[in-house]
Amino acid sequence: MLITGTFLDEISHDIPHQNWGRKEWDKDFRSMREIGIDTVIMIRCGHRNMMTFPSEVLSRKENAFLPPLDLLELFLKLAGKYGMDFYFGGYDSGRYWANKQFESEVDINLAVFDEVWKKYGHYPAFRGWYLPHEVGRNTGSIIPTYARMGRHCKQLSGLPVLISPFISGAKGVNQFAGELRTATGISVAEHEKEWNAIFDGIREAVDIVAFQDGHVDFHELTEFLNVNKSLADKYGLRSWTNSESFDRDMPIKFLPIKWDKMLLKLNAAEAAGIDKAITFEFSHFMSPNSCYFQAHGLYNRYREHFYPELFAKREKQLLLNQSA
Amino acid sequence: MLITGTFLDEISHDIPHQNWGRKEWDKDFRSMREIGIDTVIMIRCGHRNMMTFPSEVLSRKENAFLPPLDLLELFLKLAGKYGMDFYFGGYDSGRYWANKQFESEVDINLAVFDEVWKKYGHYPAFRGWYLPHEVGRNTGSIIPTYARMGRHCKQLSGLPVLISPFISGAKGVNQFAGELRTATGISVAEHEKEWNAIFDGIREAVDIVAFQDGHVDFHELTEFLNVNKSLADKYGLRSWTNSESFDRDMPIKFLPIKWDKMLLKLNAAEAAGIDKAITFEFSHFMSPNSCYFQAHGLYNRYREHFYPELFAKREKQLLLNQSA
Amino acid sequence: MLITGTFLDEISHDIPHQNWGRKEWDKDFRSMREIGIDTVIMIRCGHRNMMTFPSEVLSRKENAFLPPLDLLELFLKLAGKYGMDFYFGGYDSGRYWANKQFESEVDINLAVFDEVWKKYGHYPAFRGWYLPHEVGRNTGSIIPTYARMGRHCKQLSGLPVLISPFISGAKGVNQFAGELRTATGISVAEHEKEWNAIFDGIREAVDIVAFQDGHVDFHELTEFLNVNKSLADKYGLRSWTNSESFDRDMPIKFLPIKWDKMLLKLNAAEAAGIDKAITFEFSHFMSPNSCYFQAHGLYNRYREHFYPELFAKREKQLLLNQSA
Repeated sequence: MLITGTFLDEISHDIPHQNWGRKEWDKDFRSMREIGIDTVIMIRCGHRNMMTFPSEVLSRKENAFLPPLDLLELFLKLAGKYGMDFYFGGYDSGRYWANKQFESEVDINLAVFDEVWKKYGHYPAFRGWYLPHEVGRNTGSIIPTYARMGRHCKQLSGLPVLISPFISGAKGVNQFAGELRTATGISVAEHEKEWNAIFDGIREAVDIVAFQDGHVDFHELTEFLNVNKSLADKYGLRSWTNSESFDRDMPIKFLPIKWDKMLLKLNAAEAAGIDKAITFEFSHFMSPNSCYFQAHGLYNRYREHFYPELFAKREKQLLLNQSA
Repeated sequence: MLITGTFLDEISHDIPHQNWGRKEWDKDFRSMREIGIDTVIMIRCGHRNMMTFPSEVLSRKENAFLPPLDLLELFLKLAGKYGMDFYFGGYDSGRYWANKQFESEVDINLAVFDEVWKKYGHYPAFRGWYLPHEVGRNTGSIIPTYARMGRHCKQLSGLPVLISPFISGAKGVNQFAGELRTATGISVAEHEKEWNAIFDGIREAVDIVAFQDGHVDFHELTEFLNVNKSLADKYGLRSWTNSESFDRDMPIKFLPIKWDKMLLKLNAAEAAGIDKAITFEFSHFMSPNSCYFQAHGLYNRYREHFYPELFAKREKQLLLNQSA
Repeated sequence: MLITGTFLDEISHDIPHQNWGRKEWDKDFRSMREIGIDTVIMIRCGHRNMMTFPSEVLSRKENAFLPPLDLLELFLKLAGKYGMDFYFGGYDSGRYWANKQFESEVDINLAVFDEVWKKYGHYPAFRGWYLPHEVGRNTGSIIPTYARMGRHCKQLSGLPVLISPFISGAKGVNQFAGELRTATGISVAEHEKEWNAIFDGIREAVDIVAFQDGHVDFHELTEFLNVNKSLADKYGLRSWTNSESFDRDMPIKFLPIKWDKMLLKLNAAEAAGIDKAITFEFSHFMSPNSCYFQAHGLYNRYREHFYPELFAKREKQLLLNQSA
């Protein structure tokens, strides 16, 4: 099960930025391409008053700050250059979570989708939409939120819509808290029941579901993956897995995962018949260009395992360079 | 608004040390100089039983341990070598915060100031003093603490005295806690009232005030900066900004800030008419020599923005070296 | 007091993995050897359902996952190649701590010891055993736990058994918690009383005790080290110190320690007449190959202090290479 897609974690609210410019992003897209990544997903185009591109809508309605670099344009160009599909992630005001402001969250997103499609829809790499409001259960108004946003994107462009929910499992803790586990992990039966209801409500608005694979114990993962796959099949959704490349078991939050764990999760996804694996996310946690050098290790272990000949060739070249 | 000064975070109580020796510090001072830094401020000369130089006073009165390297001497020599002004930061016993031991905290600092001025005052780079007891509000006995220490420094040397308070804002949380925000951020009016009282009480003892700029939301910063500037003007204090180069919005504490945020804060300081920008701090968070590689990115983005020609020239040279 | 031993932190439950393969581990063993390390201790062979080698016992009884690389074999070969003694660390189910399941924890470990001695006992570098159940006080059934496991190892192989307890001191906090200190640090007298009882109960089952040196304040360490040494002498145990190379005083957990602190602790151990210093652990916190670049600094400071001529020679060679 190869990883063929990755999120682009701009704008992040919990992973420190690497402060990359045009040159560094170009280099990282090339590294993605070299291990077979053909899909990149901008996780969100804006968060609170920060944004990835100079949006008139967000400037006016959310008092968002103009960014020094238009990352949306840069990512679309790089995706085109390296032959990748780009998915555009919507806006997260922060109010949806804090105050359950469903109507206004959808309204602002529809306006952003219109603006973005008009200004950036002509890029050939623009191939899909991502709805960034991640949930684990059928809480609040998530069904109409997904449904209204997804339908709008599809009517606008005819392009597929992706969501990446989480499993409300034993590791589903707040990312700012100290503990690693919650006592109230969801059962497989509850998970199935709630996502059956959600999928039923969004089936014409959403095309692809990529559940995050990091919130349950490794021995529970297969069972949840099987449920996710059969539910998606029932409602005609495509099943991807979002195989997280950071480690949820450590007191330092968000450092690269141990290769052994990643491989376990990819093998479980393959056994469940999942269509495609994406990851959150390459640039911090799996890239040979990451500021976290543990990611370089993960990249090397991944290459060594899945591309042993290419890995050996590169190692040989490095030795030749050293002795030259 | 260029950054022309930085703290030297020795001794730190919350940022892990980089374990640099003479050579690494020399290299980093050169990097500072290359982006226009002319002022370095040792944040504190000692903390609890650790110290940056072999102080007889602290050895005797605080049972502090002799350090393997005299960082005070090293920093004074390097500041001289690279043409910078050095500010000496006082001692923090830890007891001032825990037990409000105001009298003893001042007494031990006056003895340290005497010792340091006698032993190190002849270095031409010794150009000012820094009082390390940072506060956000007019609590306890901060006025006489600042006033007695500041007056002593000025009588001893005639050199300026600097403080770097914080704004007791929405992000003013304990650095060891998990949460990022407090419900009890100070209002602009309260902040103005309390700092009016403090400035009134310290005006002949302190010369420069460099408020930290990281404890309030980005959209609130301009208003607070304007108040800080007008209060400082009213009492004849110089206004600097301490533009923090670490990110206060992340679950990992104290990693480099995203360039977009740093630029927002520098622009706000410029608009408020602030005299000079310093940062906490270059060596961990903005340096091309930092152990945190996100800092290398921040350094490159800063150079690219403020020194586009120099940045382009360096990039070109790197390309030439690679192809050679 | 030179560091001549290190733990190998596989499998870790609190330090993010570096994702090293065969080549990286070989390089790191060579770096260990270069600064005089002659002893390596695998901290545990398995934790919950993760393991370092393909154990039939753990696969069958604990449903543990097969690892992609047999680290136990790799470490034994590398220890042989570089002339080091290898200590094998037992299995930690996680249940001993959560539910005080003493009998089952011992049973599973005895089966693992048998399996390992049969399969790997022929490696010449296999020179001892490590019991991974670390405690600070005489709580629960630690005496029979240590005694049964230690006796079994010795009967099996005749090789020495090592434990590395902690001092239940002021810094003895949960590694996932935010705070740095507890109000209930143990007194020297209580510590002596409880470890007197433990040593009395394990004296024929355990040969070496290497107390961790990071849970007490620096000014308290000498007194605890003296007690540890005299107790060990009384019961015929060898005294090592486990001089921790990570910093317990920072909000980011588990980054390299400041050199000044490490040197203080090594000097205190030397003064107490401790036989040998090991560290937890070289590869993350002191290695020139670590993903944490602060560790490179610690390595350089250590070399500069203990091997000034070798350090100078290496620095000179680096300069020559640069100018060549």
